[in-house]
Amino acid sequence: MIRKYTYGNPFCTDAVVKEITAEDHSLPYLKQTVQDGRLIFSCRLGEKDLVYGLGENVRGINKRGWLYKSCCADEPNHLEDRHSLYASHNFLVVAGEETFGVFFDYPGIISFDVGYTHMDELVITLEEPDADVYILNGSGIRSIVKEFRGLIGRSYIPPRWAFGYQQSRWGYQCEADIREVAEEHRKNHLPLDSIYLDIDYMERYKDFTIDEERFPDFEGLVRDMKAQNIRLVPIIDAGVKVEEGYPVYEEGVEKGYFCKDKDGKEFIAGVWPGQVHFPDVLNREAREWFGNQYQFLLDKGIEGFWNDMNEPSIFFAQDRMDDTIDAIAELKGKNLDLDTFQKFTGLVDSLANNTEDFKKFYHSTDVGNVRHDKVHNLFGYNMTRAAGEAFERLCPDKRILMFSRSSYVGMHRYGGIWTGDNKSWWQHLLLNLKMMPSLNMVGILYTGADIGGFGSDTTEDLVMRWIQLAMFSPLMRNHTALGTRMQEVYRFDHTEQFAGILGIRYGLLPYIYSEYMKAALFGDMYFMPLSFVYTEDTFASQVEDQLLVGDSLMIAPVYTQNAEGRYVYLPEEMALLRFRSLTDYDTEILPAGHHYVKAGLSEMPVFLRPDKILLLSGGGEYTDEVDMDRVKAVAFVKEGASYEWYEDDGKGKDYENPENYGKIVVDRSGRCTYTGSRRKEITTEIL
Amino acid sequence: MIRKYTYGNPFCTDAVVKEITAEDHSLPYLKQTVQDGRLIFSCRLGEKDLVYGLGENVRGINKRGWLYKSCCADEPNHLEDRHSLYASHNFLVVAGEETFGVFFDYPGIISFDVGYTHMDELVITLEEPDADVYILNGSGIRSIVKEFRGLIGRSYIPPRWAFGYQQSRWGYQCEADIREVAEEHRKNHLPLDSIYLDIDYMERYKDFTIDEERFPDFEGLVRDMKAQNIRLVPIIDAGVKVEEGYPVYEEGVEKGYFCKDKDGKEFIAGVWPGQVHFPDVLNREAREWFGNQYQFLLDKGIEGFWNDMNEPSIFFAQDRMDDTIDAIAELKGKNLDLDTFQKFTGLVDSLANNTEDFKKFYHSTDVGNVRHDKVHNLFGYNMTRAAGEAFERLCPDKRILMFSRSSYVGMHRYGGIWTGDNKSWWQHLLLNLKMMPSLNMVGILYTGADIGGFGSDTTEDLVMRWIQLAMFSPLMRNHTALGTRMQEVYRFDHTEQFAGILGIRYGLLPYIYSEYMKAALFGDMYFMPLSFVYTEDTFASQVEDQLLVGDSLMIAPVYTQNAEGRYVYLPEEMALLRFRSLTDYDTEILPAGHHYVKAGLSEMPVFLRPDKILLLSGGGEYTDEVDMDRVKAVAFVKEGASYEWYEDDGKGKDYENPENYGKIVVDRSGRCTYTGSRRKEITTEIL
Repeated sequence: MIRKYTYGNPFCTDAVVKEITAEDHSLPYLKQTVQDGRLIFSCRLGEKDLVYGLGENVRGINKRGWLYKSCCADEPNHLEDRHSLYASHNFLVVAGEETFGVFFDYPGIISFDVGYTHMDELVITLEEPDADVYILNGSGIRSIVKEFRGLIGRSYIPPRWAFGYQQSRWGYQCEADIREVAEEHRKNHLPLDSIYLDIDYMERYKDFTIDEERFPDFEGLVRDMKAQNIRLVPIIDAGVKVEEGYPVYEEGVEKGYFCKDKDGKEFIAGVWPGQVHFPDVLNREAREWFGNQYQFLLDKGIEGFWNDMNEPSIFFAQDRMDDTIDAIAELKGKNLDLDTFQKFTGLVDSLANNTEDFKKFYHSTDVGNVRHDKVHNLFGYNMTRAAGEAFERLCPDKRILMFSRSSYVGMHRYGGIWTGDNKSWWQHLLLNLKMMPSLNMVGILYTGADIGGFGSDTTEDLVMRWIQLAMFSPLMRNHTALGTRMQEVYRFDHTEQFAGILGIRYGLLPYIYSEYMKAALFGDMYFMPLSFVYTEDTFASQVEDQLLVGDSLMIAPVYTQNAEGRYVYLPEEMALLRFRSLTDYDTEILPAGHHYVKAGLSEMPVFLRPDKILLLSGGGEYTDEVDMDRVKAVAFVKEGASYEWYEDDGKGKDYENPENYGKIVVDRSGRCTYTGSRRKEITTEIL
Repeated sequence: MIRKYTYGNPFCTDAVVKEITAEDHSLPYLKQTVQDGRLIFSCRLGEKDLVYGLGENVRGINKRGWLYKSCCADEPNHLEDRHSLYASHNFLVVAGEETFGVFFDYPGIISFDVGYTHMDELVITLEEPDADVYILNGSGIRSIVKEFRGLIGRSYIPPRWAFGYQQSRWGYQCEADIREVAEEHRKNHLPLDSIYLDIDYMERYKDFTIDEERFPDFEGLVRDMKAQNIRLVPIIDAGVKVEEGYPVYEEGVEKGYFCKDKDGKEFIAGVWPGQVHFPDVLNREAREWFGNQYQFLLDKGIEGFWNDMNEPSIFFAQDRMDDTIDAIAELKGKNLDLDTFQKFTGLVDSLANNTEDFKKFYHSTDVGNVRHDKVHNLFGYNMTRAAGEAFERLCPDKRILMFSRSSYVGMHRYGGIWTGDNKSWWQHLLLNLKMMPSLNMVGILYTGADIGGFGSDTTEDLVMRWIQLAMFSPLMRNHTALGTRMQEVYRFDHTEQFAGILGIRYGLLPYIYSEYMKAALFGDMYFMPLSFVYTEDTFASQVEDQLLVGDSLMIAPVYTQNAEGRYVYLPEEMALLRFRSLTDYDTEILPAGHHYVKAGLSEMPVFLRPDKILLLSGGGEYTDEVDMDRVKAVAFVKEGASYEWYEDDGKGKDYENPENYGKIVVDRSGRCTYTGSRRKEITTEIL
């Protein structure tokens, strides 16, 4: 059951797709007050209560014990003490003495004190008293999530090639760099489906341009790569460079499509190109106009994009930078003691993403001019919506790869996200794991973290272990930053082992794709904490380093340097598959309980649940090479195993076709039956 | 066996106290080359080889898989991708196919590529070809460490009160703040032995001054606190404020005791007071002069100090700051695109601790003027040596508490260290654990991390769990930074549970003190990785989150938020003691192997080894209240347990007195025998 409560005069975010009439009585579970103009909700937390949700944020799967905020920010460190990352996902499930879900549809700054000030108290504070609040009930956590997903609409579905292994680096400077990456992968039989273009492909960081010196024949390059079954995926930034003669800038100014300051002048921020204007993606016409710009790259054969810097990230507001330079000049010749020096560093540190600067520009919306800070968390969502809506107009029958850095609930209908600028830290490998379920809860299924870490120098073993987790992420991309160690897998000593491990992804493709599609079409989870399924198992909620992946699998990746294995909790008897490559793995049946499971550096342990089936293809070096019609059904049969298999052409949008579903059943005698309208060749392996 | 190899013309660091004649042949185990004037040592690492050492640094107990450096730095983040922290501890033990220790006595910048570039290679690079290298052999890791400790001399021994619980905060502004902290602890029966004075007790951050507005009767305060059995411990900074009329400054200039630039003028750095000069602690006379300054505070009743900012930390060199301000002014009115903006941020980011600034000043040493960068890593060591040597002169019969932030091998003879500016992160609780054994290896026994975390806001559960680890650290101090959440334990909801847990420390005092003293007097380890003792256990070296503490105990603290227990590996049968307070604990005998051990938030699991004894006193609210003559011997008896008990008055230096040793034996029938010249009342608890 979903109940809606409206406070004040909320801004319409379009997060929700269902019309629900607001209740006229006060909401259950939470105490609601207004203090100093802020809307506050609170409740007591029982000692054993669990709190799930908040999408992209720091810390655990269970969010207890920290103060979180929704204030989309370009935050490259993802440290334990951060409150916000790039997104605003104001959905929580409290489970325990009472179990309920709550979604705060509020586009401004909101904080969640989840047992931070007092360990037994949940306090949620909205900066202004205008919001729609939804209370959700259901038979358990998973059913509450499904209800929520029904409320916010179907998740974005990418083309199937986007489930292949992808390679990126901020630092590929020119055509030759791209060709080398492709060649090295193909030569070493390292599977690959796409290569990313970071900001250097553009002419001086201008959106929807190509640097013709670095990429003299861009369309030829796109074509050559596609001939090798490799797609190029360019980045699009939120800020449009201020430059006379640059058509996007000129047209945007002429039509009034950029965000303006209080005097009606275009607001000037500094980002990669220096001075930029922000397209007013909260304005319908401006959004349509900005979306249409993607045609420039679609015309060149591009089939996928990533939208970046759309919190929006502001390196500096031009007026603040001017003031800062003056203030620093005044320090000349002074004794910079603690106070004065802190003034100096304070000036510099407050240049970027200063929340005061969010108050300096406006959106021209259906309900009039709205100051940016009041709707700050909607920017990335609407930039990606601009693209998603455009693709529906420009190429309605084709799936386009699209993911964003910033997001708000609702954006999951237009694209996925990557989890932003993580670091080459072992702890971020674990954070990657922890973030996945909460992202799925808000409908973001096409997601993953930068394999190997974006910032700082990686190590070979970190990349190897990270791939073993990212193996199961729909978005499986190796990406790193300018100036860091090169981390394409062929740079390291164990190329053969990398080829073995990467090959497994292509073997898993039928399963991963099928599970992704079912999660998208039925509003379900792809990655789940154990407690979502093993609801009666009191220990399951303690497990913060294992996940269920789809219907059949549990994963327990190694995330500690130099470890040759790890502890794993099995809520029930399971079959361990210890993979070294798609064809080289050993298996073992393990009883329920605690185990220490060995896993050498290039070994990946995966657990198959009882009476469940894992589909394995014969693999390939790119997704289109994978034969989806010849699979092996690996079944751990106790009473009788079954699997519902979704499959389609991976390109078009015929999602509702009943022919997309087939069913595999393996009975106790090991006999395998397939029911479905498509011709399949299925072998079986019984564990 | 220790062999010495001399390369070039090494600077005498006084790290080593034994005269050893250098060998005239080439060294074993390592390949040695010179490249571009750099001295390089390398060897292959076997797949299972372990690498221990490097003292205070990031990452694991086993150091494999990263690039470490010795370049003492004011590094407040301690992130996985840092290469150096505050210290230079160039001692390694490689254990496996071949087992040996190696110490590079070299005061300049040195890097340790421990399987970073290639996983199977160790490469050590000294920036200049002048060093003494010692190769150590022994019957195992622990014996190699003991040999090394013999080489570098006996570890510093603090007064016993320094083993009590200590409270600090950068932010105690005045006498009233200090009195409140004392009062709240005493009122709530929270044990406490000292309160720290951070930089605000000084008059405008001038060393060896008191701010008389904030502390109008400093000596009275010291006296009142001592009447409550609480010592005050003031901070001393490395930089001496440039200020006419300030005696320390004027005398230092007059006598030429500050570090000078190439033109012979005092080098000007910026730190807390603004412009400062650095005392030339590498100069004998200057070191003596600086040490004598501590008399100012000894005279006021002070009995302990912490030396800070002595890497030395430089917020800015004055000349660089002047140039930076000019360069920033020139950016006015320009379009700050990626390159220009990075120039701006680059200027600001390179102000602090710029290694180029280390080349701008000189030390006047026994062998003439030496440019600072060539002996950079000796500064903190010699600042603390200045104090340690002074205390020997000024109060030879009394132990003075002394610890430092920066250190080099050899400094362990003059004081301990705290592990610097950590953060209120759960990962730093684990890092605290991992750092302890490698610090012990280089003789630093009096050490610990800031409980609850120094930077950023803590949480109640983090403080509780951190105390459960710090329980065993000789230095057990709660400390945090200006602007962070208050974290004295009485600020939280579970004061009673904190009192219970803190009380255990005072119960453990006889054991902790005895084990500390034996480690100091015999050059042994206090905190040990399991593999140092369980040498035949192939899994022991995999354990990176448990430690042996002294002869009897193994600890396995919980370091994960919301966890209600953790996995523990027992290399042999052990007795689990699950403490809630000194008097409230349950016990259980666990077999060797892997276990999941429950430990609620205020429960601390401790493991007693077979045939070992844990001494427990009756507790107290300060160390002097603990009755060291009435103890309980908790024995886990299999064949017969015994314990060698060291005890002295905790104040003087009669360390070698044989009467300090007693022996407790508990036989299989549970009969307890005490042999020793002092009268003891011993009860027993047999597990």
